Amino acid sequence: MTDAATTAPRRVVTGYRPTGPLHLGHWAGNVESMLDLQADPAYTCFFFIADWHMLTTHYDRTEELPGFVQGLVLDWLAAGLDPARAVIYRQSTIPEVAELALLLGMLTPLGWLERVPSFKERLRDMSERDVANLGLLGYPVLQTADIAIVRGAYVPVGEDQVAHLELSREIVRRCNRLYGEVLVEPQPLLSETPLIPGSDGRKMSKSLDNAIGVRDEEDLVRATVRSFVTDPQKLRRGDPGRPEICPVFALHRKFSPADVDRIEADCRSGALGCVDCKTLLADHVVSAFEPFRARRAELAATPGIVEEVLAEGARTVRPIAAETLALVREAMHFS
Amino acid sequence: MTDAATTAPRRVVTGYRPTGPLHLGHWAGNVESMLDLQADPAYTCFFFIADWHMLTTHYDRTEELPGFVQGLVLDWLAAGLDPARAVIYRQSTIPEVAELALLLGMLTPLGWLERVPSFKERLRDMSERDVANLGLLGYPVLQTADIAIVRGAYVPVGEDQVAHLELSREIVRRCNRLYGEVLVEPQPLLSETPLIPGSDGRKMSKSLDNAIGVRDEEDLVRATVRSFVTDPQKLRRGDPGRPEICPVFALHRKFSPADVDRIEADCRSGALGCVDCKTLLADHVVSAFEPFRARRAELAATPGIVEEVLAEGARTVRPIAAETLALVREAMHFS
Repeated sequence: MTDAATTAPRRVVTGYRPTGPLHLGHWAGNVESMLDLQADPAYTCFFFIADWHMLTTHYDRTEELPGFVQGLVLDWLAAGLDPARAVIYRQSTIPEVAELALLLGMLTPLGWLERVPSFKERLRDMSERDVANLGLLGYPVLQTADIAIVRGAYVPVGEDQVAHLELSREIVRRCNRLYGEVLVEPQPLLSETPLIPGSDGRKMSKSLDNAIGVRDEEDLVRATVRSFVTDPQKLRRGDPGRPEICPVFALHRKFSPADVDRIEADCRSGALGCVDCKTLLADHVVSAFEPFRARRAELAATPGIVEEVLAEGARTVRPIAAETLALVREAMHFS
Repeated sequence: MTDAATTAPRRVVTGYRPTGPLHLGHWAGNVESMLDLQADPAYTCFFFIADWHMLTTHYDRTEELPGFVQGLVLDWLAAGLDPARAVIYRQSTIPEVAELALLLGMLTPLGWLERVPSFKERLRDMSERDVANLGLLGYPVLQTADIAIVRGAYVPVGEDQVAHLELSREIVRRCNRLYGEVLVEPQPLLSETPLIPGSDGRKMSKSLDNAIGVRDEEDLVRATVRSFVTDPQKLRRGDPGRPEICPVFALHRKFSPADVDRIEADCRSGALGCVDCKTLLADHVVSAFEPFRARRAELAATPGIVEEVLAEGARTVRPIAAETLALVREAMHFS
């Protein structure tokens, strides 16, 4: 017995803000999980460039937007995201998202938004640069519209984002309670995202200037790896190291899977010095991204490819979005 | 010497929330000023039904929306608003407004919105009924988009709304400062709106249940006028009255212009009793709205007239809105 409702591919939605080039942290945290989802026949994937969301923090730097969007799509394609297997599109080409966000904002209590931890965090991050805008507070509403407009059933989230998705679920439930079952309530798709530290030992992040970019040339990768902090008690080869506190070892876990046990043992015993350990990591990172960089160079030389991919995505998404919006408008007596 | 820039008709924009039938307060405050504007060759008028704005306070009562919209357009047409001389449209048929509001929200500081006096007032008004939503806080941003999307040069405002428009002007200036001169900064068109009290002496308002509706039948008008409070020191004919504190006299000023001096004198002297004074007012109100009610009945019997007027308005506004949005998108590097 087959049941169409349970065997039909379910829609997974995830977006990415185009605020700079991808680094290894994004790769391990997002890109690999997107590749897994795309390969899973249980899901239909909707991957979008969240360019409106970029404005919540970068509204005064929009001149960088076209380059970031172009670069991100090339990164995605070179990484293996495939428009034949996933819908790849740009948020701002789906105007229905803006209208749905407006409607959902009318029924989202301010208190729900003001209590979002990431809102408070961003307020803190931005405090030196500028004041917070309405768009920053309304971020979760726009995100809910992103998911709901394509009737997304699942959203991949890390442990720390479950609460964020729960807010989207609450907004959807409130809409459905008020106007009938018009929107799909999305479920979290828990993904384990390995913590990727940067050169200073903190979480890898472009704004901390501690990142290894996926597009970085070999020389730059090697220089950045050399600059990584290590166990401060291990001053020279022979000293025993503590891999569990070493950011270089954290990257070995991800990029040297075949050697990780030996590296751990040799670090602890002191047989492996930090200089050699870093050289080994740089070798692995460079070779891991070699095919990516070659493929990316090829794609970058293909005129119009990004525009084509995004136009195709918009062609797929717009009819779905129009249908969802029509349902909502009708339920709210706007049609 | 003629100068196209100074002699071309300038666009005036004003919207009205469809939250119930019009009463004499709306008539004197809005409708008459719209009729004046429509008759003035210096202006091109954009009059819209602000149905998205209705949601900021009535999101849980949208089943009333179709009737309110229908009724309001019939009221407008019966009052003399003319689709041949003014663009009459419905906000929610212009999706570009939602997208522009989203973009403007990204650059509007929360503090500007939280300080809006009408936001605080509404919070107070709603406190017993429900919590405030994002849409309520974002009201001035949506209003700015309403004006800016049609490149409105003027907005008719009463003294008490100048501050509100000033916020729209600030948002437009901020947008233009960030992205270049893409939006028109609207100017206030100060209009004197007579204060029309209701039966309890407070400002006429549907929610206070003290209003005379423009569609009310003669019997109801007479009953409501009889229920008006008057000068409490004037207990019977012969007692001297104080017209300046009497709500019935305030309505005479508006609806009995030819008799107002005599009424004032006879009230003060005591020659005119309150019962006769009210009968006179009811006569004038009934006869003032007789042609309106006849015309409205005619229009209401014309199938499809409201839909036609709104469709025609949308056909005029959409290309203008699309052009404005395209300018903004380009300036923000979204195209």
